[in-house]
Amino acid sequence: MQRTIFNDIVEGKISCYKVYEDAHFFSFLDIYPRSKGHTLVIPKTHVRWTYEVPNFGEYWEVTQKIALQIQEALDAKWINFFTHGAIPYAHIHILPRYEEITAEQAVVPEINTMPPEELKKILEAILKK
Amino acid sequence: MQRTIFNDIVEGKISCYKVYEDAHFFSFLDIYPRSKGHTLVIPKTHVRWTYEVPNFGEYWEVTQKIALQIQEALDAKWINFFTHGAIPYAHIHILPRYEEITAEQAVVPEINTMPPEELKKILEAILKK
Repeated sequence: MQRTIFNDIVEGKISCYKVYEDAHFFSFLDIYPRSKGHTLVIPKTHVRWTYEVPNFGEYWEVTQKIALQIQEALDAKWINFFTHGAIPYAHIHILPRYEEITAEQAVVPEINTMPPEELKKILEAILKK
Repeated sequence: MQRTIFNDIVEGKISCYKVYEDAHFFSFLDIYPRSKGHTLVIPKTHVRWTYEVPNFGEYWEVTQKIALQIQEALDAKWINFFTHGAIPYAHIHILPRYEEITAEQAVVPEINTMPPEELKKILEAILKK
């Protein structure tokens, strides 16, 4: 399978803002966040699509745990999940949301940039929980 | 908690294009589909957000099973999941996708309408699998 930046991240060849790691899963801040605290969760074993992860239920349970920790740490109103997959390595997006939910708003906000100092502060807030 | 159209659907007070049902979960076609075969999966017990479903891992395992069945039935290239939540009853969106994935495309396509005959045909194709 085509190697991606996520292979390098999970193998420690590229540094990241690591939120969580266990035997099967790895989680880090998206550096082009669609919302403050936008976080990715990936399996340590490379598969193309999330639904090819063999322990799919466990994958989402880990994601739930991380999402609730982020929600509390950043005082988010609610959490938005999505999977797309332009990078060919399974990844779940956790998007903490701070505005009231409405039927009119975009399901997924636009991509943004964020300075490293701000990403670092967000990571510290999450890891304190 | 505020009653929604999904309460009426799960209680059988409003008819739907039912894809799946078991002891805990219920699934049906979205009648305003963002893609052909756009399907919702809800817990039978009403909670506000997906991540409040107690058996969250099982919820996603059921969703995975339905998604793979839809993908095969409709010959979709890949599957896109998302949770938003403008209707205050936990629901996961399954979006079968037919175009190649690109970083430039919208994560989630726009809402559409679809005539009942077409929804019925799609449901029949899914249920045949």
